[in-house]
Amino acid sequence: MTQERFRSVVEKRSQKSGLSPGTLVHIGEKKSEETKLSVLSYSRTEYDYKDVKGIEEIEIDESKVTWINIVGLHDTSLIEKIGKRFGLHPLLLEDIVNTSQRPKMEDYKDYLFIVMKMLHYFKEEDEVHSEQISIILGSNLIITFQEEEKDCFDNLRTRIRKKKGIVTQKKADYLTYSLMDAIVDDYFSILEEVGEDIEILEHEVINKPRDNTLQTLHELKREIIFLRRFIIPLRELARNFQNENTTLVGESTKLYFRDVYDHVTQILDTVEIYREMLSGILDLYLSLTNNKMNETMKVLTLISTIFIPLSFVVGVYGMNFKHMPELNWHLGYPLIWIIMITIATTFVTFFRRKGWV
Amino acid sequence: MTQERFRSVVEKRSQKSGLSPGTLVHIGEKKSEETKLSVLSYSRTEYDYKDVKGIEEIEIDESKVTWINIVGLHDTSLIEKIGKRFGLHPLLLEDIVNTSQRPKMEDYKDYLFIVMKMLHYFKEEDEVHSEQISIILGSNLIITFQEEEKDCFDNLRTRIRKKKGIVTQKKADYLTYSLMDAIVDDYFSILEEVGEDIEILEHEVINKPRDNTLQTLHELKREIIFLRRFIIPLRELARNFQNENTTLVGESTKLYFRDVYDHVTQILDTVEIYREMLSGILDLYLSLTNNKMNETMKVLTLISTIFIPLSFVVGVYGMNFKHMPELNWHLGYPLIWIIMITIATTFVTFFRRKGWV
Amino acid sequence: MTQERFRSVVEKRSQKSGLSPGTLVHIGEKKSEETKLSVLSYSRTEYDYKDVKGIEEIEIDESKVTWINIVGLHDTSLIEKIGKRFGLHPLLLEDIVNTSQRPKMEDYKDYLFIVMKMLHYFKEEDEVHSEQISIILGSNLIITFQEEEKDCFDNLRTRIRKKKGIVTQKKADYLTYSLMDAIVDDYFSILEEVGEDIEILEHEVINKPRDNTLQTLHELKREIIFLRRFIIPLRELARNFQNENTTLVGESTKLYFRDVYDHVTQILDTVEIYREMLSGILDLYLSLTNNKMNETMKVLTLISTIFIPLSFVVGVYGMNFKHMPELNWHLGYPLIWIIMITIATTFVTFFRRKGWV
Amino acid sequence: MTQERFRSVVEKRSQKSGLSPGTLVHIGEKKSEETKLSVLSYSRTEYDYKDVKGIEEIEIDESKVTWINIVGLHDTSLIEKIGKRFGLHPLLLEDIVNTSQRPKMEDYKDYLFIVMKMLHYFKEEDEVHSEQISIILGSNLIITFQEEEKDCFDNLRTRIRKKKGIVTQKKADYLTYSLMDAIVDDYFSILEEVGEDIEILEHEVINKPRDNTLQTLHELKREIIFLRRFIIPLRELARNFQNENTTLVGESTKLYFRDVYDHVTQILDTVEIYREMLSGILDLYLSLTNNKMNETMKVLTLISTIFIPLSFVVGVYGMNFKHMPELNWHLGYPLIWIIMITIATTFVTFFRRKGWV
Amino acid sequence: MTQERFRSVVEKRSQKSGLSPGTLVHIGEKKSEETKLSVLSYSRTEYDYKDVKGIEEIEIDESKVTWINIVGLHDTSLIEKIGKRFGLHPLLLEDIVNTSQRPKMEDYKDYLFIVMKMLHYFKEEDEVHSEQISIILGSNLIITFQEEEKDCFDNLRTRIRKKKGIVTQKKADYLTYSLMDAIVDDYFSILEEVGEDIEILEHEVINKPRDNTLQTLHELKREIIFLRRFIIPLRELARNFQNENTTLVGESTKLYFRDVYDHVTQILDTVEIYREMLSGILDLYLSLTNNKMNETMKVLTLISTIFIPLSFVVGVYGMNFKHMPELNWHLGYPLIWIIMITIATTFVTFFRRKGWV
Repeated sequence: MTQERFRSVVEKRSQKSGLSPGTLVHIGEKKSEETKLSVLSYSRTEYDYKDVKGIEEIEIDESKVTWINIVGLHDTSLIEKIGKRFGLHPLLLEDIVNTSQRPKMEDYKDYLFIVMKMLHYFKEEDEVHSEQISIILGSNLIITFQEEEKDCFDNLRTRIRKKKGIVTQKKADYLTYSLMDAIVDDYFSILEEVGEDIEILEHEVINKPRDNTLQTLHELKREIIFLRRFIIPLRELARNFQNENTTLVGESTKLYFRDVYDHVTQILDTVEIYREMLSGILDLYLSLTNNKMNETMKVLTLISTIFIPLSFVVGVYGMNFKHMPELNWHLGYPLIWIIMITIATTFVTFFRRKGWV
Repeated sequence: MTQERFRSVVEKRSQKSGLSPGTLVHIGEKKSEETKLSVLSYSRTEYDYKDVKGIEEIEIDESKVTWINIVGLHDTSLIEKIGKRFGLHPLLLEDIVNTSQRPKMEDYKDYLFIVMKMLHYFKEEDEVHSEQISIILGSNLIITFQEEEKDCFDNLRTRIRKKKGIVTQKKADYLTYSLMDAIVDDYFSILEEVGEDIEILEHEVINKPRDNTLQTLHELKREIIFLRRFIIPLRELARNFQNENTTLVGESTKLYFRDVYDHVTQILDTVEIYREMLSGILDLYLSLTNNKMNETMKVLTLISTIFIPLSFVVGVYGMNFKHMPELNWHLGYPLIWIIMITIATTFVTFFRRKGWV
Repeated sequence: MTQERFRSVVEKRSQKSGLSPGTLVHIGEKKSEETKLSVLSYSRTEYDYKDVKGIEEIEIDESKVTWINIVGLHDTSLIEKIGKRFGLHPLLLEDIVNTSQRPKMEDYKDYLFIVMKMLHYFKEEDEVHSEQISIILGSNLIITFQEEEKDCFDNLRTRIRKKKGIVTQKKADYLTYSLMDAIVDDYFSILEEVGEDIEILEHEVINKPRDNTLQTLHELKREIIFLRRFIIPLRELARNFQNENTTLVGESTKLYFRDVYDHVTQILDTVEIYREMLSGILDLYLSLTNNKMNETMKVLTLISTIFIPLSFVVGVYGMNFKHMPELNWHLGYPLIWIIMITIATTFVTFFRRKGWV
Repeated sequence: MTQERFRSVVEKRSQKSGLSPGTLVHIGEKKSEETKLSVLSYSRTEYDYKDVKGIEEIEIDESKVTWINIVGLHDTSLIEKIGKRFGLHPLLLEDIVNTSQRPKMEDYKDYLFIVMKMLHYFKEEDEVHSEQISIILGSNLIITFQEEEKDCFDNLRTRIRKKKGIVTQKKADYLTYSLMDAIVDDYFSILEEVGEDIEILEHEVINKPRDNTLQTLHELKREIIFLRRFIIPLRELARNFQNENTTLVGESTKLYFRDVYDHVTQILDTVEIYREMLSGILDLYLSLTNNKMNETMKVLTLISTIFIPLSFVVGVYGMNFKHMPELNWHLGYPLIWIIMITIATTFVTFFRRKGWV
Repeated sequence: MTQERFRSVVEKRSQKSGLSPGTLVHIGEKKSEETKLSVLSYSRTEYDYKDVKGIEEIEIDESKVTWINIVGLHDTSLIEKIGKRFGLHPLLLEDIVNTSQRPKMEDYKDYLFIVMKMLHYFKEEDEVHSEQISIILGSNLIITFQEEEKDCFDNLRTRIRKKKGIVTQKKADYLTYSLMDAIVDDYFSILEEVGEDIEILEHEVINKPRDNTLQTLHELKREIIFLRRFIIPLRELARNFQNENTTLVGESTKLYFRDVYDHVTQILDTVEIYREMLSGILDLYLSLTNNKMNETMKVLTLISTIFIPLSFVVGVYGMNFKHMPELNWHLGYPLIWIIMITIATTFVTFFRRKGWV
């Protein structure tokens, strides 16, 4: 979620200029050393999981739901092979290896293609981990492509293995929903962190701004900008799913996608509220700073306007003219004190009345 | 309506990450100790009300309108039982116990599912009480789920008991409308409080800003942000009701839902006006503060530019040079006064003409 | 158009909370002491007008256009009687007596229901008079409900009596148009007043801002906010009229409603322009104030930076050290003058070059 | 394009209040003394032009395209006569004489009615000339109403006379297009002037703002506001033309109207860019002014914080206490100089390090 | 991408005023001296390329895809000849030679007409090169018009020649896609440059703003304004392509245009993010500057409020009154020091507590 991450992706993107469309070029950090393939298949009664070495080892049993997972995107030849085996469109393969995609859903008749961003917050490192995941939903088949092995699907895998929940009673469309649901659930934890930071910041601004308060505010604003960038297309994606006219998604599963849409809308609402709150906090910060400056100026004005005239008065009687009658008056000195106190009192009274000090 | 309330809800939300969709987890404060079930049924001529202990005791008489009310959402096993008994979708049950929902309406063919927020303003405590209410509208049956016993339906219950108004002549759809109408009516009282606070604030800003004026402004802004968050989806809900293509809502009752839509639109209009007013008041506050600072600066400048040069003059004749002819002039002292008065007068005149003071 | 008026309406609104929908409660100021009923009927050749005491006295001649006008909304029993006599929906009656309505049009099959706001500017009192008017358009029948007797339809009544214009050749739909046209025409005069105030304000800001300039600006902004609130739903109303699929409005009359829509759009355009102008004027005001403050600061800086060092110099030779060789130099005093003039000249030159003064 | 022009139009508008709809009242300046009628007719082979005195003299030859042009709108009886002769709707006639119209297109079945604003920039006077033109497009007939004789159609008339271009090979719909094209072309020249002014202004702000820079900025902003007001409805007009379902506009001519739409969109794009640029220039101006003020303040602070303490030091040794041992030290005077130089150097070093000066 | 480029185009645009529509006038800089024609044709097996002198030399083989490229737009007679030969609409020809077009796509039944902007970033010169390209897509035929010879299609030409990629297996619609893809790819490199500049700017603002930081910010803002101007219509263009109902674009090729749409959306997203970032950076800059000014003011206030009263005290005892008892006290001088130190300490303590310094 740092800007550096974002930038680097764009930079690599342009290295692709001039290449033939459909040429597979891995765009993004190489996050895992080797490519891993695993095949998970299940039905109401059966469960099978194995790591495979090559695409040739994969066997599809049409009666079960098969979930092929590929970890690591830099081995473009493997991805091309997968494309051939399952009849995937070249543009789709191109999108899989280009990790600068916007979240989107595309209907290729025989299969749906979904790109999403996994965002996972690691509390210990106070760091957000972002990863692109591509999902291909065929008939009774799901193929997923991840950048690295770490993902947010462990709970889901356990549920499938232990036949918990209804996922094993359903088809591949429900599995797709389960993946999306797991991804979206992780967004909430990030929002909570950001929300907490906003709260702390607000408290700081009202009570005692620190030197880097402004910078924290700026960084939170930027985080919100980047979060919105992922979430707005995600909502579009979730909406499209409900209206999608395909036999790949059962009517009863669409209710579940409506649920995902609800969650994403809630997330976007929260992001927008955070945005407005941050802009309100900036307004508050500036106004409070302004008020403090006013206070300071008033003090300066008060002191200056009282003592500068008095200094003039004492300066007058510090002059060395031969003929200055007042200097010889017996009560000259106490008189001058009375005059000066009168001047000072008058000024202060006058200023108070005007509300200047 | 405090931010703390809002935050805590989000926090618990993430505890659900990784669980199977459809798992019932109560998200939100536990606002009532025990769960209460009550059944109210009525027709044009009959009226019956009883508190029941368990779901088994409930008997449905199809010829009457039955309103089952459940207070307290933490007993998820009860809610699951209700779900089974009435054939409710698992996702719907999940939404009922998760009190961080956006207001929404969902059509599950056999029944409509409505989630709303009750907001009640307690004048004595100057506090807004927010509670989620879920309504299930079946054929001649309504099931409502509340967080706590306190609600805004007492008047409605009395009208049903006393057969006042037309509610007992109508079906369950009209009862749903009556519930929504009662909830929406309560929003007006909150708006009035906010509106009154804005008025007081505006008066304060124009006449005499206090130290915490800025903070009050900031808090009102935040309240508006949170209010909008509930009201915008509420308007969508009310609009959908009018266009809903279901036999559960009679054509003649739709006119009443149009009325609800009107009210919500009016509420949203008012919220938007409040928002613009607050932003106008902030502008005014900053400009007025700015003007006051200007005044102060002018005074400082006036005093400084008059007396600093004069102090220099008197300083000159306070020097101890042996050979300073002016010091020995007989009229040196009065002359220097004339010179100084001339300088001061010239400056003041010049500044006035320039509009600087 | 003052905020007080607006507020009081909202306050009364909440007194209705908890009442059965359809209960008639007069919300708003009681603007006329007694309720007045009048019946005006006309055809191409006939004209008849009479004030009636009660609803029973009204006779409807289907061959003529009948316009029943009710002034005063506090006698809810009379309004209920009218509702029964003409078969009006209870929600509609509720809306008539609640003067906090948004402008709207509703189709109740047998009749159309229109709510609008009359705004009349009284030049002498420099005051805007706002009144809610409800129009029911049935077949050859119009029923209007006003808050007080004063309205903007006198010219229209005269035209009907004198058979001027084409109104007497047309049906009730054209009469409805004539009423709306008269109301909308009055909005233009208010816009002119506001526009004139904006012009004066702009002139003031550019030439010589007065003490209350900021407040006037703020008040104009608020007036614009309140005007928009009436005009935006009014435009929606006028647009709906054109697309209304009802036999109550003839095809040829729709052209006239298109004309009303045009006028309202023009009014809204003007309001938006005023809004942008006011925001531009505020920008200008703040920038000009800022510039003036800059000027003041420059003067202060110029004077201070010239005389403070010089005062130091003269202070040095005001010291009373026994051994200060310069004091005994014969040309010490003129020399010090030369030094000081050099310092001052250098400073001024330097500052001018830097553009600081 | 001055605000005065705009205001005067609105003012007259309200004089119409209370009149019967369809009453012809000329709203706007009387820009030409007498009303002129001219008839131009042409076919592929023929060309005829004559000025006529009255409506009776006009003869229509159905086989030719006839263009009737009326200059001057104050003679409402003539316009009524034209309305009768050609069967024009009273509302349309009302719109023709009311020069405060928004640009619009209305379909009256037998003819289309178009209102536009001609804006012509006179380079010599640095002045924009605005005039309303109404076009009625019937079958093989065009009637145009202008406020004054000066227009932007001279080139078009010449092309018709000389049979240049394809206009004489086409029907009345193409002539309408030619008129609109000529009008829209003139908008570009105004945009260029405004654009040039913005460029000059930006240059001024960056290099050396003058006293009236702010005011120029404000005036340009206002000009943009007024331009948008004409162009936004114009784009709507042009879009409607393409989708218009009428036999009056041939399918092949619609391509030309698409071209007009393109131009208007381009104009609107430019206006929006100008708007954003102006707001950027204001930001820049304010920030630069702010920076300059900062510079000034730093100088003042530097000088004051160095010399005010030094003045205090010399003041100390200007005191006349009998017993001040330092005064009698032999090296007192040089020592005090060393102390003062040390103080000054320390201060300057410290400030530099802190980045304050 | 400089404003000058933009301006000059608009200026020439107005020189066209008054000319017959369809008159070819080259609007824009003359970027290439002579006009060049080249014809490239290919099928799965064949490849042919030749430069031709005139339009007469071009022979079309319907069985191959033919790509005619014209470089240089000032020879309008040539363009007219091409128009006649291929039956192109006069308005289309007009658009080709007018280089101030918005990107757009127009369907002329027999062919599609596409206008785009090539933007190429030259890293060495740190300069963006903008050029208008018009593409006519007929059946198995593409005609492209460029302003100068330099373009971004070299890689594409090589791929065709070497029969790399699938372009030679496809028809003219795929070639059109390849051209658009190449153009859009170049936008990414410009975005990267802008993004890098924004990063540097942000770093500068946070760490040490330079004198021209504000100006750089302003320039980047303007660049964003100009980029959006090209990209927003481009997205519209790409969207229209997908929904285009024409036999010229095959169903399978539409998937590729969807890909272009995706890229343009991604570009627009990035531009919007840059825009928000720039506005955030400006806020940050202003707030930081403001804070620094506050610091400076606090220092001034601190120094002044301590030393101005002390100077007054020493001034008092510099007066030359005959009768000033304190002057003769033996401990007068040390006493006055104690008093002054007490005053200074009190002030500093007081200010610290108030948080003013």
